[in-house]
Amino acid sequence: MEVLIIAAGRGSRLNNRFSPKPLIPIFGLCLIERIILRAKSAGITKFKIVVGYKGDRIVEKIGTGDRYGVHVNYIFNSEWEKGNGVSVYKAKGFLKENFILLMSDHLFDDSILRKLQQIEPESDCCILCVDRRLNSDHFNIDDITKVWVENNKVKEIGKGLDRFNAIDTGIFLCSPVIFNALEESISKGKYSLSAANQILSNRGKLKTYDIGDNFWIDVDDRETLQKAKKILLEQLKKPTDGPISKSFNRKISVMISSKLSRLNINPNHLTLISFFLAVLSGLFFFLGGYPKIVIGGFMAQLSSILDGCDGEIARLKFKQSKFGEYLDRVLDRYADALIILGMTIACVYKMETIWVWLAGFLALTGSFMISYTAMQYDEFLISKAFNKKKASFRMGRDIRLLIVFIGAVLNQLFATLIILSIVTNVECIRRLFVLRHEYKLS
Amino acid sequence: MEVLIIAAGRGSRLNNRFSPKPLIPIFGLCLIERIILRAKSAGITKFKIVVGYKGDRIVEKIGTGDRYGVHVNYIFNSEWEKGNGVSVYKAKGFLKENFILLMSDHLFDDSILRKLQQIEPESDCCILCVDRRLNSDHFNIDDITKVWVENNKVKEIGKGLDRFNAIDTGIFLCSPVIFNALEESISKGKYSLSAANQILSNRGKLKTYDIGDNFWIDVDDRETLQKAKKILLEQLKKPTDGPISKSFNRKISVMISSKLSRLNINPNHLTLISFFLAVLSGLFFFLGGYPKIVIGGFMAQLSSILDGCDGEIARLKFKQSKFGEYLDRVLDRYADALIILGMTIACVYKMETIWVWLAGFLALTGSFMISYTAMQYDEFLISKAFNKKKASFRMGRDIRLLIVFIGAVLNQLFATLIILSIVTNVECIRRLFVLRHEYKLS
Repeated sequence: MEVLIIAAGRGSRLNNRFSPKPLIPIFGLCLIERIILRAKSAGITKFKIVVGYKGDRIVEKIGTGDRYGVHVNYIFNSEWEKGNGVSVYKAKGFLKENFILLMSDHLFDDSILRKLQQIEPESDCCILCVDRRLNSDHFNIDDITKVWVENNKVKEIGKGLDRFNAIDTGIFLCSPVIFNALEESISKGKYSLSAANQILSNRGKLKTYDIGDNFWIDVDDRETLQKAKKILLEQLKKPTDGPISKSFNRKISVMISSKLSRLNINPNHLTLISFFLAVLSGLFFFLGGYPKIVIGGFMAQLSSILDGCDGEIARLKFKQSKFGEYLDRVLDRYADALIILGMTIACVYKMETIWVWLAGFLALTGSFMISYTAMQYDEFLISKAFNKKKASFRMGRDIRLLIVFIGAVLNQLFATLIILSIVTNVECIRRLFVLRHEYKLS
Repeated sequence: MEVLIIAAGRGSRLNNRFSPKPLIPIFGLCLIERIILRAKSAGITKFKIVVGYKGDRIVEKIGTGDRYGVHVNYIFNSEWEKGNGVSVYKAKGFLKENFILLMSDHLFDDSILRKLQQIEPESDCCILCVDRRLNSDHFNIDDITKVWVENNKVKEIGKGLDRFNAIDTGIFLCSPVIFNALEESISKGKYSLSAANQILSNRGKLKTYDIGDNFWIDVDDRETLQKAKKILLEQLKKPTDGPISKSFNRKISVMISSKLSRLNINPNHLTLISFFLAVLSGLFFFLGGYPKIVIGGFMAQLSSILDGCDGEIARLKFKQSKFGEYLDRVLDRYADALIILGMTIACVYKMETIWVWLAGFLALTGSFMISYTAMQYDEFLISKAFNKKKASFRMGRDIRLLIVFIGAVLNQLFATLIILSIVTNVECIRRLFVLRHEYKLS
């Protein structure tokens, strides 16, 4: 399905001297880039963009869409000052089938577009995506377009409604009938999209789709821009984050990622940096002696924190890749092995006993087994999170590397190896029982 | 969709004094049990079975179907000696919607039924599954029902056709219209199902579905029974089997599984036995000294061979389980760790050097990494096999444990650890490049 993006207005509260609002950057991607890439995640590859105010800047930035792996065409609206209805109307000659209409300043979850594409509307109807969460703090109630919905049909729509039970999200599934309604409203001197929507709704031809729990936000001013940024960072958390990750690592890595996002960094290079820190950690342990092993511990913890950044940057900038994920997992395991080997050798200098090696062997085996069984265990955790059950404990890399850090600071590497051996292998046995129970139920 | 199984005939060439043909055992499950469980794999849970000759034996064996997790009802046909058309006709009052018709002596792939259930036939048509591989050696050309097909419609059907271009597989998607055709043929004194099919085909109402590469076999005599067994064992091979597995381990494990299949063994117990042998192997290495480490090597190889049996028995007897697969993977990794630990300690007795431990550490890391990356790599191998491209090399557990065996017999455990360290870690790096290339293409 094709997408029409309206990017012609001035957006007076957020534009600056140089750029129109659709080019405002958020974590290294401008608003309209985020909208294109988000729609692409939902399988959409054909875009028409209506430009007006400083349209040449937008054309210059987005181009043919090749860079994003999509096709972009432009429609120029010289009358952009009249209202957004005129901008939509300019697309009349170019769209003969159903299309999705998006605003260039509304961010949203791709699952909304995924579901919208599955809806088969009657040929003379349009569908407006609405948000029923009236108490949400994602929008400024004075600025938004309000909707009165009855039986999944829009009865009233407009900014000035006194009575309303839903919010207009700016996401539409349109049939070309919208152009007739626009023609009618423009001929009456009403230039907003809402005016045309009111005409459709008077005829019972504007239906609604409730976006449920999904996220959307109208980036309208400094305040909503900050909210949007906060939510995008919030979305970087994973349901499988362990306790140390949740309460510490993720908070710092997200902070780092938000700074790094402005640079043009390949996430795989961050994976290599995190790995390199783990190699350094193993090396400092290997060199042995008290101050050095503390540095080793710090390096391990730092590597653990940075380990989140590659995925965060990838998700934040739509740069996820199957190979990136694979590389991260493989290097994490080698990093674990090098850190444990370094710690074991540090102990061997001091004690030179078979027990040290045994502890190292068992710690390595247990660490690997936790990672080896992570996929199945995480599936179980995710299904629990999905069913909103109480989260289960997750003994992951975040905890293991924190144990290493504490052990190094306390200069107790042998004890650390023994603790790692026990907690990882016991956890592996616990998972065996948890999953046996789980698989029996399913 | 409901399934009707015809199990009323005598099957004179294969029945014995005690059992009717549907109760002939093949690897611990009788023919009709295999048919029910195979259909269950295709998502079917409701069965009607027409019984006649020694029907009480069949009812006694299968019961309500609870044991198989399905529902079974019986229809008794006292006129079973007349012909199989009469048996189908007896189901008339019980089947008001489309159903699948199966013979109690025809084995087949469940993918045939999976696809058949997706076909929506016209209401007055039946669909016959046909095999176009006329040169197949799975059947005796004199005994089978032949078909002349034109434009996906049956033109002629019968055992005595001179001209034919397909074989009747005995698998049908029937609409209740089949009962009208049967009524007509029976009233003319023709009691076979083929006679009714000829009536349908005369009216252009018998269409065909080509089963393509899928397996089916009519178990009609000693010869086809042996063929069926051979094929079932052949199907136990996996596209991800490594070279040692393909040429040696799998052949022996399949032989063992075919014997064990007669017993009522839980596949998970076989997993535990294979693990126990690996523990013994590690223990013999740990005890050290020349004759003992040879025993350790033998135990490792034996464990490697038996490692195939759990999955083979599970697949052969429809006892696959998610937990069984998980348990097998987890215990295999602990088995690997114990064998490498045992070998390392055996070397430490003789050399007591840090290099031995280092080699053990690296061998353990590499072995784990091969298993850790197996899922992604196997996905790639399977997609290659699916596209019929030349198989890629797979450095798996079969090769590792053979190296251990050879190293033990030659009394070269340290060299073995070094070889394992190198081949496993190099292979892991090779996979990184192979998969980077693969993911870039996809």
